[in-house]
Amino acid sequence: MKVGLIMGSTSDWGIMSAAAETLEEFGITCETRIMSAHRTPDLAADYAKNAKANGFGVIIAGAGGAAHLAGVIAAMTTIPVIGVPIKSKLNGLDSLLSTVQMPSGIPVATMAIDGAKNAALYAVSILALSDEGLARKLDEFRKKQTQKVLDATIQ
Amino acid sequence: MKVGLIMGSTSDWGIMSAAAETLEEFGITCETRIMSAHRTPDLAADYAKNAKANGFGVIIAGAGGAAHLAGVIAAMTTIPVIGVPIKSKLNGLDSLLSTVQMPSGIPVATMAIDGAKNAALYAVSILALSDEGLARKLDEFRKKQTQKVLDATIQ
Amino acid sequence: MKVGLIMGSTSDWGIMSAAAETLEEFGITCETRIMSAHRTPDLAADYAKNAKANGFGVIIAGAGGAAHLAGVIAAMTTIPVIGVPIKSKLNGLDSLLSTVQMPSGIPVATMAIDGAKNAALYAVSILALSDEGLARKLDEFRKKQTQKVLDATIQ
Amino acid sequence: MKVGLIMGSTSDWGIMSAAAETLEEFGITCETRIMSAHRTPDLAADYAKNAKANGFGVIIAGAGGAAHLAGVIAAMTTIPVIGVPIKSKLNGLDSLLSTVQMPSGIPVATMAIDGAKNAALYAVSILALSDEGLARKLDEFRKKQTQKVLDATIQ
Amino acid sequence: MKVGLIMGSTSDWGIMSAAAETLEEFGITCETRIMSAHRTPDLAADYAKNAKANGFGVIIAGAGGAAHLAGVIAAMTTIPVIGVPIKSKLNGLDSLLSTVQMPSGIPVATMAIDGAKNAALYAVSILALSDEGLARKLDEFRKKQTQKVLDATIQ
Amino acid sequence: MKVGLIMGSTSDWGIMSAAAETLEEFGITCETRIMSAHRTPDLAADYAKNAKANGFGVIIAGAGGAAHLAGVIAAMTTIPVIGVPIKSKLNGLDSLLSTVQMPSGIPVATMAIDGAKNAALYAVSILALSDEGLARKLDEFRKKQTQKVLDATIQ
Amino acid sequence: MKVGLIMGSTSDWGIMSAAAETLEEFGITCETRIMSAHRTPDLAADYAKNAKANGFGVIIAGAGGAAHLAGVIAAMTTIPVIGVPIKSKLNGLDSLLSTVQMPSGIPVATMAIDGAKNAALYAVSILALSDEGLARKLDEFRKKQTQKVLDATIQ
Amino acid sequence: MKVGLIMGSTSDWGIMSAAAETLEEFGITCETRIMSAHRTPDLAADYAKNAKANGFGVIIAGAGGAAHLAGVIAAMTTIPVIGVPIKSKLNGLDSLLSTVQMPSGIPVATMAIDGAKNAALYAVSILALSDEGLARKLDEFRKKQTQKVLDATIQ
Repeated sequence: MKVGLIMGSTSDWGIMSAAAETLEEFGITCETRIMSAHRTPDLAADYAKNAKANGFGVIIAGAGGAAHLAGVIAAMTTIPVIGVPIKSKLNGLDSLLSTVQMPSGIPVATMAIDGAKNAALYAVSILALSDEGLARKLDEFRKKQTQKVLDATIQ
Repeated sequence: MKVGLIMGSTSDWGIMSAAAETLEEFGITCETRIMSAHRTPDLAADYAKNAKANGFGVIIAGAGGAAHLAGVIAAMTTIPVIGVPIKSKLNGLDSLLSTVQMPSGIPVATMAIDGAKNAALYAVSILALSDEGLARKLDEFRKKQTQKVLDATIQ
Repeated sequence: MKVGLIMGSTSDWGIMSAAAETLEEFGITCETRIMSAHRTPDLAADYAKNAKANGFGVIIAGAGGAAHLAGVIAAMTTIPVIGVPIKSKLNGLDSLLSTVQMPSGIPVATMAIDGAKNAALYAVSILALSDEGLARKLDEFRKKQTQKVLDATIQ
Repeated sequence: MKVGLIMGSTSDWGIMSAAAETLEEFGITCETRIMSAHRTPDLAADYAKNAKANGFGVIIAGAGGAAHLAGVIAAMTTIPVIGVPIKSKLNGLDSLLSTVQMPSGIPVATMAIDGAKNAALYAVSILALSDEGLARKLDEFRKKQTQKVLDATIQ
Repeated sequence: MKVGLIMGSTSDWGIMSAAAETLEEFGITCETRIMSAHRTPDLAADYAKNAKANGFGVIIAGAGGAAHLAGVIAAMTTIPVIGVPIKSKLNGLDSLLSTVQMPSGIPVATMAIDGAKNAALYAVSILALSDEGLARKLDEFRKKQTQKVLDATIQ
Repeated sequence: MKVGLIMGSTSDWGIMSAAAETLEEFGITCETRIMSAHRTPDLAADYAKNAKANGFGVIIAGAGGAAHLAGVIAAMTTIPVIGVPIKSKLNGLDSLLSTVQMPSGIPVATMAIDGAKNAALYAVSILALSDEGLARKLDEFRKKQTQKVLDATIQ
Repeated sequence: MKVGLIMGSTSDWGIMSAAAETLEEFGITCETRIMSAHRTPDLAADYAKNAKANGFGVIIAGAGGAAHLAGVIAAMTTIPVIGVPIKSKLNGLDSLLSTVQMPSGIPVATMAIDGAKNAALYAVSILALSDEGLARKLDEFRKKQTQKVLDATIQ
Repeated sequence: MKVGLIMGSTSDWGIMSAAAETLEEFGITCETRIMSAHRTPDLAADYAKNAKANGFGVIIAGAGGAAHLAGVIAAMTTIPVIGVPIKSKLNGLDSLLSTVQMPSGIPVATMAIDGAKNAALYAVSILALSDEGLARKLDEFRKKQTQKVLDATIQ
């Protein structure tokens, strides 16, 4: 299953590219699209409604301010949607609350502000549930990550 | 022109009914619908896209939490949309930021938290621009409102 | 109908000029004035009370901090007032709350922090209700805006 | 010199009456008026412009939400204005920021949220600067207040 | 695969029971445990490290205040962890930030404050990726949910 | 009567010097001292207790973070104390709340974050109550200030 | 060594009594005093300056709003001071920031909002460093606390 | 007794080094380790559980964002733990709340945002309770600190 990586504007790529890189490290196909809940609502609806049929297993959506993208996508698909609140005028508090405070019935898995890399890792953990090879890669990643901290020294 | 009054759930009616009452006082036709950006996205899209053709001049949308309704509607119509952030877990701060912090290109006129009556008054002020009778009623309303404060006394 | 564009200080022009430019794109006459709720209260009162008679259809007011300008203007006119909270010491949270939390009876249509362009677009949407040519321009603007996102690519 | 005690609505009296009582304890004449920056702007302007001539030495203004009253009054008089932010939808954070974040040139002395009694005590401290009798009463008040805490016991 | 439902205290059950009920509706086995990141750190570590081997596919962790439970669990397993910030002294803002602002490397999928039902639905969406029957149930759930809003009327 | 201008550290002078300059413009004697509620509590106590006897009419205290200086001074004198919250790690929100949320009995007149100039102007307004010459200067200052805004133009 | 337990008002006892009870459980002498940084500054100064000589090893100070008590005490003693921010108008956010954001040089160990029991436990942990019996009691307390969570069941 | 100084990442050293320097000034042995609640949970557990046996009297833990480190350590040792919230995306508000809002039973002594120096001074005050030499050094430090402020002048 592929991961869909969408964001409201090319200016979000500076943050969201970390998700693409991480997915690539894990050998997961990631398709990136610029798409806005407000400026391209029809595209967003089409994308979400066809996501499953188009082979997507998870969608990662990054947006800032009144960050509606993840919620709007989640409203129109049943595959897991991961929201990344992108830093904005209010340091990302608006982005965070707009992404996470979803009403009962339509969940969005919200990551930290600017947490694009974690969004990818979370997608990996989801896909790894039915892919033992991926699960091993994630274990490996975690071990390396732990080792890196263990090796860290203050010169 | 009619005013569309929409909200995400019947539980919002306790707040939003103030808008309906105020519009009625001014003799403006107001059609109320329950509609959710997340639970009925297709209805919201249809509603917004046909709003102008259906004779709506202004849409008032009330929602709480990750309040996407006003923004989602505004994305699919060019008639003025007024957003009412409804009080929630975080006292309405989440509702407010989700409603007001819209990206450049798709504005939502945001009212105070639970400000349903003001949403109606703002709709009146918009419609009054091309309706002298309504403008006179608004002037009258303001005068009475002023007089009421002038007459207020602490017993 | 003209749009009045006012702000508390020339230092706000860096943000508010986006409104003037957008209105100009739509061929709407926009008159800009520096005017402060606190430093020129009489000018503000005169301006607001005569706004309708002077041919204004909408007023856009930008202010920061204890941003009273939009509310003070709205108190003295019945034409629609749009408030733009300008970023300040507290990232604009103070400006936003001072602008949006208006008491029942006197609404201000509040835009995002620094949302001057959206203020202009909202004014356009109001004026377009009684101006078919303007409505067409707004449709056109929206289509171009959508196309721009559709065309966006990450190199 | 008298103290003017104003507030936006009779519903504020529950909080603001503490100021009246405290001023009375000190034998200071206090005139109470309901007056709104938004619903009675002309009254507010008249009141502020004539406050000094009418014998007021200090004005205490209580308001909630987008609490513009103290700032609007301060803009039109040079006598000291004390603002009391009244608790609201956002626990008074909006009232506080709207009252305190005044622009350079027009100060408002802001008290704690719902701090009506302190507003009166501050007015007393101002008037006591040129009234030795009042200064002695304030000293006395402080001593009693201190003694009351010294005498406090947990049963 | 089972879902693990954990929370710091029995007092969280009032909120978290909604997750158990929802999982039951979908026929998913849910094991509930009281477990605290701070008061039973060894239990939490054992639980997390053995979660996968014990047949858990997803863990839902609810906690309030300095809500470390979800993060601490996520640190010791690679299966997806869903965090539910539970309302607290600061209306849940502390719970939310403690849950969502995870460092790069260890993601927690954060739900809305008190969003236990959505946590369950998100778990369903994850498990449904490899369980067509579950996917159909989720589609059905969504349709009913939509219909319920479509049928809602204001009496 | 002189004005005492105190602050916790020489690093606050960048903000607080505006108060000294403004007082000088008005011909008011201003004595500046570095003094900390926490690092020099005895000096602060001595200063406050003797302020009136030493000829001070008003004290302006600037501090940031857990800004206790104004409150600590106010606790030990009955002359008016004006607090200036200085911008800090949390943009001054901590400084503001620490300064303004004083308990009943000991008021501090709080200015905007970094509002040193307004602190001076407020001191002027207090002293002007019993000094007609100063009152005239304040009127003059206000008129010039108004004129400056009236003359402002956007090139 | 005794623990000093102080608070600004008898109304704080509802929260602070938990500290007294916990200290008693551990057999630590606890002396409770009502004392205010603002209403009894001299008492606070005397108390702090003589705390060490009077046999206190730790001071626990609870206060709300502009909670200066812990900081003011810490400024005048070198024994460890523990601050308990007490819930207030702003849900305790003001109390928390006023207590915790101490300037460099004078630390206050801040507990959670209303965290009186934890203040006592922290005092115990400090005193246990040089009291093996107390250390054993603390170990015992922790074990019981852990067991209580382990035994918790949802009926 | 030694002080343990731990932090989640080498990037925290810029802030946390102030603690090491201060402890060194006081002649206290300080051992610094990079250790993460999330990336090296086993190391953190081992470290905490053996801290007392390894001769540590106090642990200072610095972390940002969802800052769980201090709480996780405190959960597994009974020696005093001091938490330093490190500035992050939300200016450190998330770090602060994640560190301070600990549940009843497991206290963390929280310092100001980035308050590493104060963490060291607090550790000194704890250790000085049973070390008269250290107590004298702390008195000396305080006197110098006071003198430095007394000597400060604005050129």
